Amino acid sequence: MSDAGFPQRVEFYRARLQASLEQALPPATHHPARLHEAMRYACDGGKRLRALLVYAAGETLDLAPHRLDAAACAVELIHAYSLVHDDLPAMDDDDLRRGRATVHKAYDEATAILVGDALQTLAFAVLARDRDAGLDAAQRLAMVNTLAEASGSCGMVGGQAIDLQSEGRQLTLPELETLHIHKTGALIRTCLRLACAAAPALPDAQAAALDRYGKCIGLAFQIQDDVLDIEGSSADLGKTAGKDSASLKSTYPAVMGLPAAKQRAAELFDEARQVLDVFGARADALRWLANHIQGRNH
Amino acid sequence: MSDAGFPQRVEFYRARLQASLEQALPPATHHPARLHEAMRYACDGGKRLRALLVYAAGETLDLAPHRLDAAACAVELIHAYSLVHDDLPAMDDDDLRRGRATVHKAYDEATAILVGDALQTLAFAVLARDRDAGLDAAQRLAMVNTLAEASGSCGMVGGQAIDLQSEGRQLTLPELETLHIHKTGALIRTCLRLACAAAPALPDAQAAALDRYGKCIGLAFQIQDDVLDIEGSSADLGKTAGKDSASLKSTYPAVMGLPAAKQRAAELFDEARQVLDVFGARADALRWLANHIQGRNH
Repeated sequence: MSDAGFPQRVEFYRARLQASLEQALPPATHHPARLHEAMRYACDGGKRLRALLVYAAGETLDLAPHRLDAAACAVELIHAYSLVHDDLPAMDDDDLRRGRATVHKAYDEATAILVGDALQTLAFAVLARDRDAGLDAAQRLAMVNTLAEASGSCGMVGGQAIDLQSEGRQLTLPELETLHIHKTGALIRTCLRLACAAAPALPDAQAAALDRYGKCIGLAFQIQDDVLDIEGSSADLGKTAGKDSASLKSTYPAVMGLPAAKQRAAELFDEARQVLDVFGARADALRWLANHIQGRNH
Repeated sequence: MSDAGFPQRVEFYRARLQASLEQALPPATHHPARLHEAMRYACDGGKRLRALLVYAAGETLDLAPHRLDAAACAVELIHAYSLVHDDLPAMDDDDLRRGRATVHKAYDEATAILVGDALQTLAFAVLARDRDAGLDAAQRLAMVNTLAEASGSCGMVGGQAIDLQSEGRQLTLPELETLHIHKTGALIRTCLRLACAAAPALPDAQAAALDRYGKCIGLAFQIQDDVLDIEGSSADLGKTAGKDSASLKSTYPAVMGLPAAKQRAAELFDEARQVLDVFGARADALRWLANHIQGRNH
């Protein structure tokens, strides 16, 4: 896998993910068809950043891609479910996602709730199903555990709850950081942990380095999201721009000022690249992803 | 465990479940506190029938109760999450559950969505966490798998989707049976399967007998629910009685007539007891539960 650069393999990994999703999701015609069609709709599109992080960490740890197919698929299913529920009228009330109607707009609210519920279940089913991926039961169980910890009330769902409670008041910087470490950071960080779970006898220092990378990228990603919400256009973002300031949400630019927020993001991206030194050239994929995420405009 | 009858152990098992839930749920003061308080609220009360089925199957298979604590806890967490989401305004729109305000009434709709999401995650975390319960990773992974299959879009969530699509029109008997095999039956049936996952080298005939028991009990339970909705009072039920006919939902009494529905339930309870013959006296707990469920008035 090392004779071409990671950018040449991005589409290969996206295609692997697509194949895994295709296999995991029941056919759109399977009873109840409306639910299954909507589940597939919810999983379409997106940058697949989380899956790419899983595979890039796999390259760093010399893991064959097929050992990480289930992990990459599961983390994208969790991400997709969280978007469907976050967009609901009772939550962020968004009409647009990935450039088209949100699930509750394209279908209906009850279907959107059930789609999110079923996608979450499917993520754990994908990890637990017996397949010949060269993983033993203990490794797959460790993946279930790390994904559940990252997704639950002390991770992603907790972050969304903190976010909803924070609307209409200005957060302090530590409060804002706590929010995003939960809401976005936990799932991004767990992409690296999922790859570690598939690596036998991984030295602690390497696991810690990948964990640090994941934490930095997760927070940098969110700060940049806040910056893009101010500087980007709805067309680029594929969702409604300027929504954060319109709904009085606390953002890094609002709390720190725009230049300081940009600088904080840059520092986190630098730190993410720096902790990879321990891996030498094996971490080029993760370096490229850090650069790629830093350079995105949506 | 065999010197006293199962009825004397029901409170013992309920206390075990309560202790497991207590340990699994983050403290109500843990950040974000409103979410964690609401998660605990959602798990209070109820008959704990699913946990009792897990433990009763464990008696039949000579399994020590501590081997099934995680399974009993996980299945009740899934059940609790499903009630919270089913009660939402966009779904069944219920104000009353287990004799008090539903989660979205006691808290708010966004919190109720997140409570359900986090309880589902917690169910899988409970199964995956490394504890000294005498189960190996393969057994716990099998539990994750059976619980996920029963809960997802081809199980419980699929049943709720079918139910919502069926409102306002009269179903045929096979359609109604499909609905309930998914909506209520799958999770009840999986209680028996979870116990089987903890039993090493279980003969196929015994696994099949327990599965058949679970299928019969699951369907009988739902037919009886429909009958109780007509014959019971809201005070007994702890939820709004007469709701099914008021909302034009298809029910067994509506499709078959009340006497035929009662007879069908009785036949299913009889069949459930009969398939237990292969276990002799070891299945007394499951026999008692079949009688107990048959005799309930709420």
